[in-house]
Amino acid sequence: MARTDIARRVYNHTWKLDPIIRSLLDTDFYKLLMLQMIWDLYPDVDATFSLINRSRKVRLAEVIDEGELREQLDHARTLKLSKKELIWLAGNTFYGRKQIFQPDFLQWFSEFQLPEYELARNGDGQFELTFHGRWTDTTLWEIPALAIINELRSRAAMKALGPFALDVLYARAKSKMWEKTERLRALPDLRISDFGTRRRHSFLWQRWCVEALKEGIGGAFTGTSNVLLAMDTDLEALGTNAHELPMVAAALAKTDDALKAAPYKVLQDWNTLYGGNLLIVLPDAFGTAAFLRDAPDWVADWTGFRPDSAPPIEGGERIIAWWKERGRDPRDKLLIFSDGLDVDTIIDTYKHFEGRVRMSFGWGTNLTNDFEGCLPTFSEALDPISLVCKVTRANGQPAVKLADNPNKATGDPGEIARYLRVFGGVAREAQAVRV
Amino acid sequence: MARTDIARRVYNHTWKLDPIIRSLLDTDFYKLLMLQMIWDLYPDVDATFSLINRSRKVRLAEVIDEGELREQLDHARTLKLSKKELIWLAGNTFYGRKQIFQPDFLQWFSEFQLPEYELARNGDGQFELTFHGRWTDTTLWEIPALAIINELRSRAAMKALGPFALDVLYARAKSKMWEKTERLRALPDLRISDFGTRRRHSFLWQRWCVEALKEGIGGAFTGTSNVLLAMDTDLEALGTNAHELPMVAAALAKTDDALKAAPYKVLQDWNTLYGGNLLIVLPDAFGTAAFLRDAPDWVADWTGFRPDSAPPIEGGERIIAWWKERGRDPRDKLLIFSDGLDVDTIIDTYKHFEGRVRMSFGWGTNLTNDFEGCLPTFSEALDPISLVCKVTRANGQPAVKLADNPNKATGDPGEIARYLRVFGGVAREAQAVRV
Repeated sequence: MARTDIARRVYNHTWKLDPIIRSLLDTDFYKLLMLQMIWDLYPDVDATFSLINRSRKVRLAEVIDEGELREQLDHARTLKLSKKELIWLAGNTFYGRKQIFQPDFLQWFSEFQLPEYELARNGDGQFELTFHGRWTDTTLWEIPALAIINELRSRAAMKALGPFALDVLYARAKSKMWEKTERLRALPDLRISDFGTRRRHSFLWQRWCVEALKEGIGGAFTGTSNVLLAMDTDLEALGTNAHELPMVAAALAKTDDALKAAPYKVLQDWNTLYGGNLLIVLPDAFGTAAFLRDAPDWVADWTGFRPDSAPPIEGGERIIAWWKERGRDPRDKLLIFSDGLDVDTIIDTYKHFEGRVRMSFGWGTNLTNDFEGCLPTFSEALDPISLVCKVTRANGQPAVKLADNPNKATGDPGEIARYLRVFGGVAREAQAVRV
Repeated sequence: MARTDIARRVYNHTWKLDPIIRSLLDTDFYKLLMLQMIWDLYPDVDATFSLINRSRKVRLAEVIDEGELREQLDHARTLKLSKKELIWLAGNTFYGRKQIFQPDFLQWFSEFQLPEYELARNGDGQFELTFHGRWTDTTLWEIPALAIINELRSRAAMKALGPFALDVLYARAKSKMWEKTERLRALPDLRISDFGTRRRHSFLWQRWCVEALKEGIGGAFTGTSNVLLAMDTDLEALGTNAHELPMVAAALAKTDDALKAAPYKVLQDWNTLYGGNLLIVLPDAFGTAAFLRDAPDWVADWTGFRPDSAPPIEGGERIIAWWKERGRDPRDKLLIFSDGLDVDTIIDTYKHFEGRVRMSFGWGTNLTNDFEGCLPTFSEALDPISLVCKVTRANGQPAVKLADNPNKATGDPGEIARYLRVFGGVAREAQAVRV
């Protein structure tokens, strides 16, 4: 037996591209749920998505080769769903429900390809990456665009490393990840899932982390937001809805009253398509305090909340108090924590709320991109950055997010001022945004 | 490109044997230096080597399959030196000296194969593995026999592990090893070498550790005792002499006076063949105190000592004091520490003696077989054991080792008593033998 597989070696050394996005399903499940709703209810709305690097010190356009970025984006545009993927979307049960995707929608989706992109560099060493077009088309760029940039950055950071240093790097990252599973194993009723697609170090590393959780914490690992990984590893695909729904609804609002009603309008839209465990409220797009204050009573009947831009214990307590005010028993309710979680915050939050409310943790960046201390010499080149891809315009109107943490706000300053006036800026407190 | 290399897969699943010993050079360099001396000066002496497991709680014959052990031992017996290996032995410079091996010796060695073995199991769950025959033949069994048994034990401990658990196991071991290199890097004038062949977890793991040291501490890593790895990785092959020389010389001694002179006699033998940095005294075969007390003055002219069965600081201080008594400057002398070293003892010893004597560390078990805490669940199955393969008879006479640590003594109790009487048992203190 020859030691060298010559064909493979030649192939490895001559391939044109090591693709980062391998499938249109390499995205978050909630993007597909939202896509179906957009396709159903907002088919003619235009929405622009833009890349925003909140870690300005990291000059991405100086780290990542623009040619490589274009190659990866172009490659993603060639992808269409395979037959197997379509059959799985049609035949699989999601959140206990069969045929969650309508046949007409899947028919349309089967022809889907990612639309064009616009890429430029600005004077601050950042890429300006923008997606214009119908909301139904542009929305699906968010996750692959982020995953591509994050993985190209990882690759750039590792280019100078020899095989030995790479071996040590991944050995350390694996050991680190495994220690985390061992700590989490101590929590008897933990429910945790992978929400780390957009910020992952790489696709293969995300897959390894998902396998580590499966092996390490067993049933406490409830699934992954990554549709492709869910399909390939027989896990539950998880996730509900995101800020883009209220943000677009708000941008489309013609009056201040319509603006004020927008966050509840999209919940009603959602409710026409989905029910049960998918009835999760994301309350912070324009400030959680305002949202809760003005919420119609039926919002308290929904299954749960996902507080996404306040510290988990503080954010959870506020929602529990609100449920109580509205006469609901929090023990019947679900809180999904998903903002900047690490093992310590997961454990602290779990212990804090144990027995008082149902909980679930959507673990992102610190799951799939924690290489701190893993490089052979000290460097921040593999530290995760706060990169997002947000809707910035809808039908030409600027889109805004206030969030509970002003450091996570996005949008035009004038519009932000108007939104603050309409919703009131109560109880928004600045927190450092790490990722 | 097919994802599965069918031929390799079939090969992997049908091969008969995953050999542990791949070459006759997969042994310690000092065995070859001693072999040439034995071949030169003691060609007609018979010597029996026997396996001794000092970790009696580990019932090796219940852990390791006897059939697999025989297969590995039989495989080792098929090995002969390759042309390349002979050319390298003849052409390489060892310890700064060309042609350290005489052409006649290499001619004889080119035909060498390991002799027969005797294998049985006793009532204590241990193997009785014995090698009878000419000393020139049996001496080379020591290292491969130990390496085979240690690696078969590792393999047995890992048999139940799936691919994921194995991945985590080696990731942890690599991280652990790398932390060690980082700690050692802080010592500016460190000189350290790999002495871990006999106790290694496996051949491939030893190779990884050697690569880690090469990469991690650079020039402070002075070489390896493993001849094959030295050849393959262009490192210095290191090592001088072992207890078997004084032990056989002592067993051959006809009178108590001859017995008392035996340790110095073999040093004179050594000096007829080797010089310079190879003039290293191993003083503890029958107790270091007795050895130093009775040593002729020329022993103090030798390059250095390897204290091998006392705590390093205590053992080193004793030899430094002796050099001073004999009017030699320790700063011109070399101490080689090689007994049960770990990073802490290396650092402590280095700092203790810094500037007072030249030092070198021969790092064994804790380098090539430290998997403590690396298994996914708590287990001692991969902890190293104290396994040795010692000369037990020479020309029919029992061989004895007293050592400075009575727990490391080997031999017939009656003979031990006689040796204690002849050499005196001063300053021998029991220490726990970990490995």
